Amino acid sequence: MTTQEALKKLKEYENLSFAINHAAGVLYYDGATAAPRGSAVVRGKTMSELSRIVYELTTDPETVEALETLNGNRGQLDMITRRKVDELYRDYDRTRRIPIDEFVEYEKLRSDSDAVWHKAKEDDDYAAFEPYLQRMFDMTKRIALYMEPDKPPYDAMLDMFERGLTTEKCDEFFSALKLNLTPLVARVSMKGYAVDDSPLRQKFSIDKQREFSDYVMSIMGIDRNHCIIGETEHPFTTDFSKYDVRITTHYYEDMPLSSMYSVIHEGGHALYELHTGDELQFSCLGGGASMAIHESQSRFYENIIGRSREFCSLIFPWLREKFSPQLDDIDAEELYRIANKSEPSLIRTEADELTYSLHIMIRYELEKKMFSGEITAKELPNEWNRLYKEYLGVNVPTDREGVLQDSHWSNGNIGYFPSYAIGSAYGAQYLYEMNKDFDVYGAVSDGNIEKINGWFEEKIWRRGKTIDPSELFESVCRKFNPKYYIDYLEKKYTDAYGL
Amino acid sequence: MTTQEALKKLKEYENLSFAINHAAGVLYYDGATAAPRGSAVVRGKTMSELSRIVYELTTDPETVEALETLNGNRGQLDMITRRKVDELYRDYDRTRRIPIDEFVEYEKLRSDSDAVWHKAKEDDDYAAFEPYLQRMFDMTKRIALYMEPDKPPYDAMLDMFERGLTTEKCDEFFSALKLNLTPLVARVSMKGYAVDDSPLRQKFSIDKQREFSDYVMSIMGIDRNHCIIGETEHPFTTDFSKYDVRITTHYYEDMPLSSMYSVIHEGGHALYELHTGDELQFSCLGGGASMAIHESQSRFYENIIGRSREFCSLIFPWLREKFSPQLDDIDAEELYRIANKSEPSLIRTEADELTYSLHIMIRYELEKKMFSGEITAKELPNEWNRLYKEYLGVNVPTDREGVLQDSHWSNGNIGYFPSYAIGSAYGAQYLYEMNKDFDVYGAVSDGNIEKINGWFEEKIWRRGKTIDPSELFESVCRKFNPKYYIDYLEKKYTDAYGL
Repeated sequence: MTTQEALKKLKEYENLSFAINHAAGVLYYDGATAAPRGSAVVRGKTMSELSRIVYELTTDPETVEALETLNGNRGQLDMITRRKVDELYRDYDRTRRIPIDEFVEYEKLRSDSDAVWHKAKEDDDYAAFEPYLQRMFDMTKRIALYMEPDKPPYDAMLDMFERGLTTEKCDEFFSALKLNLTPLVARVSMKGYAVDDSPLRQKFSIDKQREFSDYVMSIMGIDRNHCIIGETEHPFTTDFSKYDVRITTHYYEDMPLSSMYSVIHEGGHALYELHTGDELQFSCLGGGASMAIHESQSRFYENIIGRSREFCSLIFPWLREKFSPQLDDIDAEELYRIANKSEPSLIRTEADELTYSLHIMIRYELEKKMFSGEITAKELPNEWNRLYKEYLGVNVPTDREGVLQDSHWSNGNIGYFPSYAIGSAYGAQYLYEMNKDFDVYGAVSDGNIEKINGWFEEKIWRRGKTIDPSELFESVCRKFNPKYYIDYLEKKYTDAYGL
Repeated sequence: MTTQEALKKLKEYENLSFAINHAAGVLYYDGATAAPRGSAVVRGKTMSELSRIVYELTTDPETVEALETLNGNRGQLDMITRRKVDELYRDYDRTRRIPIDEFVEYEKLRSDSDAVWHKAKEDDDYAAFEPYLQRMFDMTKRIALYMEPDKPPYDAMLDMFERGLTTEKCDEFFSALKLNLTPLVARVSMKGYAVDDSPLRQKFSIDKQREFSDYVMSIMGIDRNHCIIGETEHPFTTDFSKYDVRITTHYYEDMPLSSMYSVIHEGGHALYELHTGDELQFSCLGGGASMAIHESQSRFYENIIGRSREFCSLIFPWLREKFSPQLDDIDAEELYRIANKSEPSLIRTEADELTYSLHIMIRYELEKKMFSGEITAKELPNEWNRLYKEYLGVNVPTDREGVLQDSHWSNGNIGYFPSYAIGSAYGAQYLYEMNKDFDVYGAVSDGNIEKINGWFEEKIWRRGKTIDPSELFESVCRKFNPKYYIDYLEKKYTDAYGL
């Protein structure tokens, strides 16, 4: 095979691979939004067929020959093609170790299990979900062992979402957080600052909340021609190239801030995808660099921007006017305090910035225990509840508000959760660097979110997956140090709570 | 290849083929409902890749060998498998004659052209659509010639939607209609019965219209666990097995009947798909028998049931209560008269039962002229407008209300329109047969639509594509004769208009 033939083959592979992933992604989005309730069985069937095609494409001898040919002539390739070859070969090398039947079965399980989880959560019926969850952990572990036989399987999963991440690094990071945040959480809680959030717990029309989402997306500079907003039980972002990005949210009549922060969080993911480089589209380098880098964007917009005093002031006039007279009696400062009300709670996605990482640590501990076999799915709810009591001091009244709350495990996204905490910590370090270039909160006050977007686009977004996540982070911030995050939280809560 | 191996291969083919068609169908549905405006280019790209996979699956030598093996051992096969082999071989035999590049290009054109049509209709900009439409007619003609080199290409297209249909049969049918309906249309119009439809031209809340759609679907006995309703510019039905059926409608504030009859029409399609045989699912025999048979169901429910005095009486109490006080001054009889207001008009989907076929004849004439080269896309709007003047006596003020109104041509569905008129005519003959078994309008009065559904399920729906459409029709009604349709319309309008 000549280099030219190999390049042609690579292009064909990329086109087909993009199409199948696009199709599977739209099936998933459609399943979570529009599809009839009783259609899950059909979707599961199709998803597993598509995964069969993905497997065959990935391990197709001609594609592999093309990759090997290109690898042998690296010198002739531009940097992007070289990176593609490396990434695709890595993907092939991991996929080929998985027997096709298990690969397809895993995809089927993900699809089925997601449908069972939805219903189980709705019915608060953990027992219905338990066998699926056990199988999901078992299969994920088995798949991890196939892909990386020399690694502890949980490390293989961490590495899948965040290249280079290990249990050792996570343990170290979470220990530092725990050591430093626990006293802060205690001080905040001892101060007993009972923020009255009742003004934001009235009934707010869902239609107006929808309008508010549009407003927030426009403030964030999100291009609506290429980004829609849908409604799902559990908010998420998905994309099929930078030209088709979708975020979802969930509206609660008595919690407008819940949807607002979902929109800002998912909006952060969307901005990233919408600004990946044109030359990377429809290729394996087209998305975000990793999960932690992705969450570092979404959590940055949600918290560092969205829960800032300046952002609350920026959006408050809209809220007051549109929801009048409901918010006539409060001001922007009160909105800011409510948006930063910190209290140990049950639901991760609703958690405040300070206690959020504790929710992540609990999931991280549980994933490790499940992978080591220390506990089984049967014991998971008890262990969940015990850890919520230990870390956050709260009693979990139902599994719906406990172990059933997140969609990640039902989708096989085991080893993903640490990315949220690492991403959150990354954010504080971006803020430090960004402030050297311009006054970040000044830009927010001016409604000039584009300035922040521009900074990220230049340093992170446009680069897609052309670079490993840790290298990318270090190119922006030098070495990662959780101290920035801890300092940021200390400062913010000392100020907000007048400690 | 042994019979067993061939059967296994057939099953594999069916599963993959179903999955790709399912994925393409959801992409289409998503594109028409949820997807961001700027995503068409991505969808077009994926659609053409998927069509490449379809082509390769259909012409895969192993699949063909399996089909040939099975054909050689027909005696050992059950009837359903035999039918599948015939259908799939026919499909292969037609597909293989099309060069793959043209096959893929055609799919790409369909997707692109659909996006351009949407925008052109919105902007009333025929010039933007014209080159796509010309290419669509040219390519469709070329594809038809590849598939059926020995047939006039327009006949090949008619046959594609309705096995066995020819220009000759259409000409004969439409002549009979024209001969008999023209004097009736003239009498209705001479009578000058100006039905006052102003009570149904007030502003009706879209949210309540949505509730009304749910009500109508429940009256029709549609299983909502497997059938959703979406909103699109142009209503349509699509399905991915009997377990996932979707209809769409379009709401106009001042025309609640427009959406209602769209829902009933698409609901008729949906009922058909929802009741195809379990054993036919995920196979090439799983859908409706043909387009005319499909339209015969949708048009039956829309008109013969939905525009009957009994149906209007059945639903009127709901309407009056929910929209109170807007409909306080009319009664069910007035609703019936408004629902059957007959007047020459511009928009096919809004046309009354009597003049509807004239809209179809115009499209049929135009398709023939385009295929014969008598006119080009450039001349199409003028010719459209001229025929609307000739057949219906109306002036077409804009292309949006003229040549741009339907989605069919942009999707390559050329040769489809006659199915609507033939399907409508079939309906009158079903009614005649059904009345022998039970009092059809008595069942409607009793709200017992299930009885009608049961009759169709037994005679038509469950059989899917296991039988050719004309044979299916004749098994229910004996020979097709447009006289039943003409008599039905005569009787209905004589009664409704007191002629």
